[in-house]
Amino acid sequence: MGKVNVESFFSDNSKAAFKNDPPGAWMPKLPDGCIRLSSGYPDPELVPAEEIKAAVARLLDEEHDLPLHYLGSPRITKLKQQILNRLAERGIIVSEEQLLITSGACQAIDLIARILLDEQTVVAVESPTYMEALEIFQNYTKQIISIPMDDQGIQTTLLKEMLDERKRKGLALPRFLYTIPTYQNPTGTTMSTERRQHLLKLSSEFDFLILEDDAYGELSFDEIPPPIKSFDECGRVLHVGSLSKVVAPGMRIGWIAGDHAFIKASEWFKKDLDHPFSQSTMAVYLENTHFEKRLLLLKELYRAKCAALIGAMEQYLPAPVSWLAPAGGYFVWVRIPGVDTSDLLPQALIEGVSYVPGKYFFLNQSDGTEFLRLSFSYADEEEIIDGIQKLGKLITPFFNGLPDRDMKDTNAPAP
Amino acid sequence: MGKVNVESFFSDNSKAAFKNDPPGAWMPKLPDGCIRLSSGYPDPELVPAEEIKAAVARLLDEEHDLPLHYLGSPRITKLKQQILNRLAERGIIVSEEQLLITSGACQAIDLIARILLDEQTVVAVESPTYMEALEIFQNYTKQIISIPMDDQGIQTTLLKEMLDERKRKGLALPRFLYTIPTYQNPTGTTMSTERRQHLLKLSSEFDFLILEDDAYGELSFDEIPPPIKSFDECGRVLHVGSLSKVVAPGMRIGWIAGDHAFIKASEWFKKDLDHPFSQSTMAVYLENTHFEKRLLLLKELYRAKCAALIGAMEQYLPAPVSWLAPAGGYFVWVRIPGVDTSDLLPQALIEGVSYVPGKYFFLNQSDGTEFLRLSFSYADEEEIIDGIQKLGKLITPFFNGLPDRDMKDTNAPAP
Repeated sequence: MGKVNVESFFSDNSKAAFKNDPPGAWMPKLPDGCIRLSSGYPDPELVPAEEIKAAVARLLDEEHDLPLHYLGSPRITKLKQQILNRLAERGIIVSEEQLLITSGACQAIDLIARILLDEQTVVAVESPTYMEALEIFQNYTKQIISIPMDDQGIQTTLLKEMLDERKRKGLALPRFLYTIPTYQNPTGTTMSTERRQHLLKLSSEFDFLILEDDAYGELSFDEIPPPIKSFDECGRVLHVGSLSKVVAPGMRIGWIAGDHAFIKASEWFKKDLDHPFSQSTMAVYLENTHFEKRLLLLKELYRAKCAALIGAMEQYLPAPVSWLAPAGGYFVWVRIPGVDTSDLLPQALIEGVSYVPGKYFFLNQSDGTEFLRLSFSYADEEEIIDGIQKLGKLITPFFNGLPDRDMKDTNAPAP
Repeated sequence: MGKVNVESFFSDNSKAAFKNDPPGAWMPKLPDGCIRLSSGYPDPELVPAEEIKAAVARLLDEEHDLPLHYLGSPRITKLKQQILNRLAERGIIVSEEQLLITSGACQAIDLIARILLDEQTVVAVESPTYMEALEIFQNYTKQIISIPMDDQGIQTTLLKEMLDERKRKGLALPRFLYTIPTYQNPTGTTMSTERRQHLLKLSSEFDFLILEDDAYGELSFDEIPPPIKSFDECGRVLHVGSLSKVVAPGMRIGWIAGDHAFIKASEWFKKDLDHPFSQSTMAVYLENTHFEKRLLLLKELYRAKCAALIGAMEQYLPAPVSWLAPAGGYFVWVRIPGVDTSDLLPQALIEGVSYVPGKYFFLNQSDGTEFLRLSFSYADEEEIIDGIQKLGKLITPFFNGLPDRDMKDTNAPAP
């Protein structure tokens, strides 16, 4: 009885998926002490560890074993209500049957992909877009189309051209378009209200759904733009949200809000990939938390850290480097003309600073070589400044002989 | 812009899956106060709520925000080691690269199905088998074959006949066989060591894998039989385990132990459907717990409750009713000749007792109409006796005029 031939057992679907980059390829293991400008993690000081400890204690004192069984406690229903209330404040009016709690936004995206996509189904994404969403879609379909963005978000006129052309040629239209309209990952841009409405109009005209990933939507420095879902009268928008960026990612609480048929179908495949203890704990945490006050604190801190990052870039990065100043969220998108940010990363890690090379956010990776994503969420201000100094030291030699930066360059880098 | 036509968007795969019973169809909502002889939940007194509260407090005091980020704390590595140690005690020697922590056994089974199954791939299962595993496999393939069991577990001679016949006819052989060899769900039976070895031999001869679901394996009343994986020298066995039945299901900690290539592939699709906080908490809980002592306590209580259930059945159920007395686990499999247990359930719920109708454990549901699964794990002894009395009251009229039970009938009900 010889050793089994492992490769012979994999399904065709998984063999096809294995041709892509493996999940997490975009972030090598960081050396100890490396300044994390790569990670979309919340600020460590803002993760409410004490409050979660208190919530667990109260939950288990009050409910004993109940939250530790498969179905969890009645507080899961309460969590649903708390999420519905937050959604309502943002103009999204849905019922309990139109909401599914998931293990973070990624499970939500995965479930939606699973219920909607076959191997040849067309999906449209922004270019660039969230690399983990790309990874998920590539596990399901070979037909992904990307639509360029500018500083106002996805270019809906280009989208319309693409749709018209596909229609003319008799090609399949997208089943859904995936967008992060607010403080996009990775670009930090926000889609204008006009484009949101245009996009919704196109979805109706060309009969596709919109998967709106709103993980950062509450983290505005100033005014919060209304989610696309708040304009949706036809049930075309599946709205995905998460508490990872505003409470704690390790709790894995996300959701899908949308038509009941989609929710029911997602639930079908989710089965008990659920987390009753975590959901019950989160309900108690939210009961005990003045969430609006917490949000104000988050916004203030992230605004300050974003300003520190941009200030440091103005000071330490050579003039040809440009970026988009975001109005919220976690990320700044940076262009270093002529430099391959992927080649540069190993050296940056040795210097002690990390970022995510731009190529991972593009379907066609060669479109992203000059870009990188910086996150101001996790590192503190001092580390941010230190990190950008390190990055400046690495980048400056590429531009020797060129004039110094003399003013803030906020031109949108053409993605 | 009219209401979207939801049904037009579903993938072919999901439309095919929706033709099956929806997940959880086997258990209607229970009325308040209903005695749960249906649920495979651990005993409420044995769920270590206080200890988990203490573990969370210690974890967050020591590690602050760390366990609440995406990657969790270094204790996740420790949890892996703790699981590896427990596996080693049962004769399963695997390395860290051969182990994947999952959100319970169901995610493990789902991931294995996902990496191995295409729409036409053949899977073999025991008949009867765990209904949630059936649900999962039916989400991936239309080709499921079931092999009858007796009181020694799956009938490997019938399996061999089936394999020979398929080979002769040029039909595809199973890619894997799913088995719960120890204290099976739903029958409570344990596969004999001879059959375990025969099964392993067949897997090599006919080149299929074995998916060994060992969720109940540690809950023996007496001696624990060695898992199939402990005999596996060729890497044919994927061993799935869980802490749901021995600690708390709400923590959602399970695992796959197997060849690194399968682990890597499962990880590919799992992505961050992970639970860092829960995993870190479990590591602290296990640090603080004398697990062998805990297991002894569990075994003693479940042995007593199983005896109470069987004693009550002898006293209150009419003679033609028969069952298999298990040597561990959570379940007793009962046959009520000539009675459709599915039809009987609504009345049982009104009377205040629940069970799972046998049909849900069969691929061909009509094979299971006379059977039902009782669980002695959740209800206390008094409730168990009360529940069986209620059941007896319902069943007895079907057998009026027949002689009373005069001795314990432990003949195996032919599944």
